[in-house]
Amino acid sequence: MKALVYNGSGSPSWETIPDPAIESSTDVIVRVDTTTICGTDLHILKGDVPAVQPGTVLGHEAIGTVVEVGSGVSTLSIGDRVIVSCITSCGACQFCRKQMPSHCQAFGATGWVLGNLINGTQAEYVRLPYGQTSTYRLPEGMFDAQALFLSDIFPTGFEMGVRYGRVQPGDVVAVVGVGPVGLAAVATAGLYGASKVIAIGRTRPRIDKAMVMGATHAVSTMDANWMDTVLNLTDGLGVDVAIEAVGVPETLDQAFRIVRPGGHVANAGVHGKSFSLPINDLWIQNITFTTGLVDTVTIPILIDLIKAGRIHPEVMGTHHFRMDSMLDAYSVFEDASQHNCLKTVITR
Amino acid sequence: MKALVYNGSGSPSWETIPDPAIESSTDVIVRVDTTTICGTDLHILKGDVPAVQPGTVLGHEAIGTVVEVGSGVSTLSIGDRVIVSCITSCGACQFCRKQMPSHCQAFGATGWVLGNLINGTQAEYVRLPYGQTSTYRLPEGMFDAQALFLSDIFPTGFEMGVRYGRVQPGDVVAVVGVGPVGLAAVATAGLYGASKVIAIGRTRPRIDKAMVMGATHAVSTMDANWMDTVLNLTDGLGVDVAIEAVGVPETLDQAFRIVRPGGHVANAGVHGKSFSLPINDLWIQNITFTTGLVDTVTIPILIDLIKAGRIHPEVMGTHHFRMDSMLDAYSVFEDASQHNCLKTVITR
Amino acid sequence: MKALVYNGSGSPSWETIPDPAIESSTDVIVRVDTTTICGTDLHILKGDVPAVQPGTVLGHEAIGTVVEVGSGVSTLSIGDRVIVSCITSCGACQFCRKQMPSHCQAFGATGWVLGNLINGTQAEYVRLPYGQTSTYRLPEGMFDAQALFLSDIFPTGFEMGVRYGRVQPGDVVAVVGVGPVGLAAVATAGLYGASKVIAIGRTRPRIDKAMVMGATHAVSTMDANWMDTVLNLTDGLGVDVAIEAVGVPETLDQAFRIVRPGGHVANAGVHGKSFSLPINDLWIQNITFTTGLVDTVTIPILIDLIKAGRIHPEVMGTHHFRMDSMLDAYSVFEDASQHNCLKTVITR
Amino acid sequence: MKALVYNGSGSPSWETIPDPAIESSTDVIVRVDTTTICGTDLHILKGDVPAVQPGTVLGHEAIGTVVEVGSGVSTLSIGDRVIVSCITSCGACQFCRKQMPSHCQAFGATGWVLGNLINGTQAEYVRLPYGQTSTYRLPEGMFDAQALFLSDIFPTGFEMGVRYGRVQPGDVVAVVGVGPVGLAAVATAGLYGASKVIAIGRTRPRIDKAMVMGATHAVSTMDANWMDTVLNLTDGLGVDVAIEAVGVPETLDQAFRIVRPGGHVANAGVHGKSFSLPINDLWIQNITFTTGLVDTVTIPILIDLIKAGRIHPEVMGTHHFRMDSMLDAYSVFEDASQHNCLKTVITR
Repeated sequence: MKALVYNGSGSPSWETIPDPAIESSTDVIVRVDTTTICGTDLHILKGDVPAVQPGTVLGHEAIGTVVEVGSGVSTLSIGDRVIVSCITSCGACQFCRKQMPSHCQAFGATGWVLGNLINGTQAEYVRLPYGQTSTYRLPEGMFDAQALFLSDIFPTGFEMGVRYGRVQPGDVVAVVGVGPVGLAAVATAGLYGASKVIAIGRTRPRIDKAMVMGATHAVSTMDANWMDTVLNLTDGLGVDVAIEAVGVPETLDQAFRIVRPGGHVANAGVHGKSFSLPINDLWIQNITFTTGLVDTVTIPILIDLIKAGRIHPEVMGTHHFRMDSMLDAYSVFEDASQHNCLKTVITR
Repeated sequence: MKALVYNGSGSPSWETIPDPAIESSTDVIVRVDTTTICGTDLHILKGDVPAVQPGTVLGHEAIGTVVEVGSGVSTLSIGDRVIVSCITSCGACQFCRKQMPSHCQAFGATGWVLGNLINGTQAEYVRLPYGQTSTYRLPEGMFDAQALFLSDIFPTGFEMGVRYGRVQPGDVVAVVGVGPVGLAAVATAGLYGASKVIAIGRTRPRIDKAMVMGATHAVSTMDANWMDTVLNLTDGLGVDVAIEAVGVPETLDQAFRIVRPGGHVANAGVHGKSFSLPINDLWIQNITFTTGLVDTVTIPILIDLIKAGRIHPEVMGTHHFRMDSMLDAYSVFEDASQHNCLKTVITR
Repeated sequence: MKALVYNGSGSPSWETIPDPAIESSTDVIVRVDTTTICGTDLHILKGDVPAVQPGTVLGHEAIGTVVEVGSGVSTLSIGDRVIVSCITSCGACQFCRKQMPSHCQAFGATGWVLGNLINGTQAEYVRLPYGQTSTYRLPEGMFDAQALFLSDIFPTGFEMGVRYGRVQPGDVVAVVGVGPVGLAAVATAGLYGASKVIAIGRTRPRIDKAMVMGATHAVSTMDANWMDTVLNLTDGLGVDVAIEAVGVPETLDQAFRIVRPGGHVANAGVHGKSFSLPINDLWIQNITFTTGLVDTVTIPILIDLIKAGRIHPEVMGTHHFRMDSMLDAYSVFEDASQHNCLKTVITR
Repeated sequence: MKALVYNGSGSPSWETIPDPAIESSTDVIVRVDTTTICGTDLHILKGDVPAVQPGTVLGHEAIGTVVEVGSGVSTLSIGDRVIVSCITSCGACQFCRKQMPSHCQAFGATGWVLGNLINGTQAEYVRLPYGQTSTYRLPEGMFDAQALFLSDIFPTGFEMGVRYGRVQPGDVVAVVGVGPVGLAAVATAGLYGASKVIAIGRTRPRIDKAMVMGATHAVSTMDANWMDTVLNLTDGLGVDVAIEAVGVPETLDQAFRIVRPGGHVANAGVHGKSFSLPINDLWIQNITFTTGLVDTVTIPILIDLIKAGRIHPEVMGTHHFRMDSMLDAYSVFEDASQHNCLKTVITR
């Protein structure tokens, strides 16, 4: 089959490698019908994720069709169409039994296995360990591009941002960062009744896009008085929930500066540096700060909400490619802002 | 002043009685600008609420203007415009300190004092004991009829129905009963992300009204197969949350029959008879059943949601009267379905 | 092998039947080292549980040793010692993924499969479907009788009583019924900081036993003024949490009569009749009422608490038998109060 | 009256100043029967809390007797004995109505008013603004030294440590720091069912004291391999909850290093410097970090638990003084470790 292979650094290749085969009784082989590229894949190509071995197929998001199942698989059959979770869950370890497969112990310390510790989804076929508990059925009548971003981006924004941030009805929610994860948080904050959803970013066209996804206000940090603008959208004391969705110290600092006493700062960004936490100011502020890798346990909820017309993840798919143009998709996504690209949709 | 006085039974009178005066340092006297009639007032007139003494002014809902404050009042001033809570909260007893003023102990066992244990709001003026903690400021720019139903109906549907029912994103919620409280639950279920809100009632025009308030489906129990219709809107196992908003055994039974294992039945209706609970079926069903009088602690949240345009309580005010037509308002409300009346708005 | 077989009604037999064998890739065969009898088994013998087919081996509680695993089993090996959960969990259905295997859909609508829908644990060997997700490892150094009651009784009292009852630090908790489930609730109420644990039963010696398990007060309903006694242990308003652990209308009524406004009634008993719920009184009382079959998801927590010396389930094992005296064990347990028997411990 | 007066820096004086008088209708004047000194008082003397004006009477903890009440006070009478909360709560602002009086807005942004913004409790009398909602009744039969540490220390350890840390039954809890707040967390962790409570400090005699307060293990960070010792008390992945109770970067860092994925770090210390948060490691660890000033809303719960014999705050009172030896009490407390002093008890 053809697959997108990481070569150790720099440019990946789209090359022919052996088809995957069942290795364990709980494996499922899925034909990849639709996949996409994640910001994390770009980090891997830059060599930022040393755990990834050269020769690995990248990708941890997909919609696919079951083509083969191991002998221990009873709830999936050949022909079933599934949403592949970015998190591989054995279903039996202490973390999986607590609905926290982000830390599934089957492969060590993390549930992020696909396109990291083993071959991933940017290929014609993919082997899914623990396939039963690492996929969700694609409902009848839902098209691939509607569900594709449930593999990772939408649950990440919803779980790490909105749910960890404990958004409550009436809350003013600020989302710092308007990339895919930030926009997923914007799009789902209303599910817990946010009264205002303030998208905070830098460049204007990008922030304004958030308004289409469900933001009620857009604020650019390039305006000198952006913080006053945000505080004026509250009673002056700050927002109830600030969601960080960039992953650099500057934006995390912004989140802490705009949150009110008793409020929540939920980190959804991937960070590469430590952060100078102003604990000397915060100790008395009754702040809750959360971090985390997504568990994807909300995929069934998000499916129901798509069916109900309450969320529309498909609008995030701005650029479409066929799988044999995978390298073109990478080119566009590597220069996403230039192309005004949010997420790619790559079909077989 | 003029006031609507309960005479022991039958028809009330609109008569002149002495103006209220400060009796305790925490009292506040409010000029009633807008009030309304509650189904409970009709129950009182039928003699169903024996605690109410003849001579009592009825009414527990109002928007008003502060005209006098006791010496112990520091956060309210003359001229302040307020939403009067149907619950009088001393702010200091164990229940008030736990945000459960429904059981404030200052007047015994209940926080429902106005128009019950003391004179109420269907008058030109009303004395509010513990005025500071029993009112909420009407925000600048909000008109009376927008906020009027925050005194009781909207918090009741939201707190007793939606919050006690623990609605979660993606849930299918059924509301049995499409009177004011049921419609308030319908209108607020989406604040916790309900994917479907099924309004269940009897007569068609009434149920369809729920669709305007936020229901996604309307079902009449006069259709023989109404229950199948409801179950078919789920995966066949039943709804996640069933809210009872009528107050008779038949509708409570309906709620228990349509709820799924692990689901919630939230009672928001006022009941006069016991109910034959099928505990022989339910013991194994992991059901949570809740009851309660409203606390109105969500009024500030509901205010923010009105300002954000997420709820529109004013659409429930179908019939408008001036205060000196109070008896006409009662006539219409007593025959509400005939007049297609939901709630009256009675202004000074 | 030898097994305790239900013959359709009346007395069971201890007879030789074929050994169980792997039927599905996720099966595990366990040698039963220690088992016990549940009140439910007696109900089956009386014909109260029509789903149970004649010829079925009874029993849903055991400590055992893995002797064979299906091809789909990766986390259990031959020789592993396990606590068998009374709930069979497929780990993949919507209920299992929500930590509610009580309603696992693999065998229809219930997770109670062993000794009900298929052969159970009162035998020399038992086949466990979905063995990986339906057992918990017995920790090194823990003896069988310490862990035996984690199969069902202790999680039932803890989950259905204490956790569903939302016991909070400082709460006054009443447990109505001092059989095994009631005593398990008594023994675990302190884990959420109950300030008083009132055991309520009928006969004195039995109630007093609760004092050994962690009750702080014992009250007999045969005292005419038992209810005053209970209320006097509170501030007069009633207990915070009332746990029903008998399963008849009378005791459920007692629970509702002693609970305070804002309190919780948690049903842990198995009921055969409907109950006349005084909803006309309760609608205004802000009561939460819960029901349910155990999920056993707290077994890992209870294991840690046994290791920490905070709970001592083994004291419930009052009568010991060898497996070939199974019928004697039944005789004693059928007349438990006569023999002052709480639970039997039946070893190989 | 006599009072302990802050002179701007250095040593305070015990001098005669005018008696306090009612200034507002909600004021209560309390005769101070028993008081104590807090670590914060020492910080003030060092000039670390610039908001405190010279001439201010220090102290925010006391048991006292009501001697005068303002006209707006209805629930307290002369002669009532009360626990003075360190937090002054108006009962009417948005924070007080949400049970978060730590941020009561009556005096600006903080509920810590006594001995900070106005005269405090280290005096013969003290004026308590909003006296009704800023005190709790001392129960009949409870002696002063039992309840004294409910003013601040015990609620701080319980609320900021144990409750914000979301301790659950079975959890392994580590408390970093064995001063009064840390010991209060140690003493209350079992109320939510902790299976192990590991006290972590420096010097041996001090840590071992924690064992008397409820710790199950004591670990000194002066042992080079202290961290391995802690991890070995878990399954190797770390503790469920780490409570910081010192207030320096080093100990906060220790807390983050020993917490497991999915765990909680609860800050209860007062910090003067920023902290280098390793967000590059933590972003993927699903950690919840909390900070906060105490609300003291758990005082009624703690009272019930004292009465039930589940907690014994009085053992923290190691050194007793009469009020006219206030300066001696300060001398001892300023050199607490030298005197093996935890808290002073200063009686009239």
